[in-house]
Amino acid sequence: MSTAENFRDNFPVLRELAYLNAGTEGPVPAVAVAALQSRLDSDLHRGRIGAAYFDEIRDLAARARALYARVLGAEPGSVALMGSTTEGCNTVISGLDFSPGDEILTSDQEHPGLLAPLRLAILRAGVSVKVAPFAELANAVGPRTKLIACSHVAWVGGEVADIAALRATGVPVLLDAAQALGAVPVNVTELGVDFYAGSGQKWLCGPEGSGALYVRPDRLDELEPPWPGYATISDHDDILHGPLAAGAARLDTSFPPANRSAWAVAALELFETTGWAGIHERAASLAAQLAAELVERGFDVLPRGCSTLVSWRVEDAEDQVTRLAAKGVLVRSLPGGKLLRASVGAWSNEDDLDRLLDALS
Amino acid sequence: MSTAENFRDNFPVLRELAYLNAGTEGPVPAVAVAALQSRLDSDLHRGRIGAAYFDEIRDLAARARALYARVLGAEPGSVALMGSTTEGCNTVISGLDFSPGDEILTSDQEHPGLLAPLRLAILRAGVSVKVAPFAELANAVGPRTKLIACSHVAWVGGEVADIAALRATGVPVLLDAAQALGAVPVNVTELGVDFYAGSGQKWLCGPEGSGALYVRPDRLDELEPPWPGYATISDHDDILHGPLAAGAARLDTSFPPANRSAWAVAALELFETTGWAGIHERAASLAAQLAAELVERGFDVLPRGCSTLVSWRVEDAEDQVTRLAAKGVLVRSLPGGKLLRASVGAWSNEDDLDRLLDALS
Repeated sequence: MSTAENFRDNFPVLRELAYLNAGTEGPVPAVAVAALQSRLDSDLHRGRIGAAYFDEIRDLAARARALYARVLGAEPGSVALMGSTTEGCNTVISGLDFSPGDEILTSDQEHPGLLAPLRLAILRAGVSVKVAPFAELANAVGPRTKLIACSHVAWVGGEVADIAALRATGVPVLLDAAQALGAVPVNVTELGVDFYAGSGQKWLCGPEGSGALYVRPDRLDELEPPWPGYATISDHDDILHGPLAAGAARLDTSFPPANRSAWAVAALELFETTGWAGIHERAASLAAQLAAELVERGFDVLPRGCSTLVSWRVEDAEDQVTRLAAKGVLVRSLPGGKLLRASVGAWSNEDDLDRLLDALS
Repeated sequence: MSTAENFRDNFPVLRELAYLNAGTEGPVPAVAVAALQSRLDSDLHRGRIGAAYFDEIRDLAARARALYARVLGAEPGSVALMGSTTEGCNTVISGLDFSPGDEILTSDQEHPGLLAPLRLAILRAGVSVKVAPFAELANAVGPRTKLIACSHVAWVGGEVADIAALRATGVPVLLDAAQALGAVPVNVTELGVDFYAGSGQKWLCGPEGSGALYVRPDRLDELEPPWPGYATISDHDDILHGPLAAGAARLDTSFPPANRSAWAVAALELFETTGWAGIHERAASLAAQLAAELVERGFDVLPRGCSTLVSWRVEDAEDQVTRLAAKGVLVRSLPGGKLLRASVGAWSNEDDLDRLLDALS
């Protein structure tokens, strides 16, 4: 596939390394660093001041918001710029108005980035958190369940949530999309979810400290901005009591840094120009291929869905990570020390997979 | 002053421009961009993965925390890494346990970055916010006042809070240090304030999206981390109910991005090597000199304290900003269109001031 092969050339780290860790942080595209370097040159020599400069910041933020919106399948007005998936989860969990006795339902496969925000609802609002198996979440909804908060793609093994079943419960749904946004096809509008929180630095190959939150338009007014700042309020003559700014941008957790936006925009434009559909297809196909090859070689691969994560059991995960890294194959271990996880992207190729399989044997 | 003159050479923007706007964003030191470029090169070619990489992130964050701590006059364990002054204010106001009927006292000279967070206390906890003149805050404390939240250095005219008077009221004090941290001598331990929130991108010449929050050790346990994430909890096997991590780092609003830390560390090390005492002295002296010259030339300079801001009344602030910028003199207008503000740093020199004064006449 020549398009996919050309796409791969955008990531210098892949020249030497079988980099299979986008589930932690994605490979960095050269265009993103070039965009950032051009901005740094301007910061250094022109300064960070003046109407033109702030127009540039606002324009970069608007472009980032529009690009996130397109990969989400949403309108830009429904997208808030975040520093992480955790910030998106915090924005929703802290912004909703829970009462003592309410319940939030979550799964047994969640990352600290979702669990830590849930803690706040327990402490602040007296909410109880019920934990059910990932595959059985919809059946665990009860009369007090006010929110289902779980992964779209589970970070340990790459299982995919049955969103239709969750939606059918009628309970609002917050998805932790850390392993989904950019990795698998997403259309939040078609999915009908209420809240969708994703990371920028993983499958979107953006900078650390970036991400996006989708809020369904009819839910926006239910969220009191939990982290208000300069852009939260529309009327700067009445910050304390005046009306909120329009759209999900009022939930932005900071005045969006220009350099963060520039990197994110360059990376997202690369994906968009290449074509999201082909990117998702290529990544899913390579990941399935890796899973099949591992099974064929006798590895115990964890149950997975149509995702880009492949995890399998080993005896000595930490040692293997080190041993594989010495051979230029980069994967991660998972907590507990008995699992290895490979993240397969559209930037990966058969050669990367062969290097991993060879190194494992 | 040759040290000060050498110091100035670190800021390329000053070669051509009289850049007098650190109150918005500081001039960028060349060492900071060099540090960032070296990291970007590593991101691009080595990837963002592995034990060594995460050790590097943690090391950079620890160095940033220690450097912020020293300019604050605090221990690193009392410093949280923030994305802005606003985040610091939000962390305190959202983290404290207010009750309906409680009052927060603030001043008539506050920036939206403090006022927006106060909004949350009004809405969420039923707190009332009382606004008093900046110079008379201590006298406005009443029996229901649970927090005084105001600027250390007021952003409009550069007045300085009477912190001893505020402290003498016995009410906890949160200072918005956006125009203070890095600009004027600070020792939070000697000041005895409870909470102190500062910006990284202004007087510390750091990246956008950076800052620090000091929390007095005996106040730390009163703050429920309002934005919990991976590093908030000490025991990852019991995220929902386990104990909090030690120190103010549990309030960090994100897993600190490596590139943000690298820039901040390089800039802070430059200041520290040059010597904070001399930097503060030089900036205060130049700012006082500018204020005196403006008064001498008949300008109506706003009341100011021993700070690095100088503001004066004009008829047509927006037009003047444009006119001055065309002459290479960069200052800002303030809301209302009748005030200009110059930010004077240790990187400024008499030549910059003369260029401003000449351009005004």
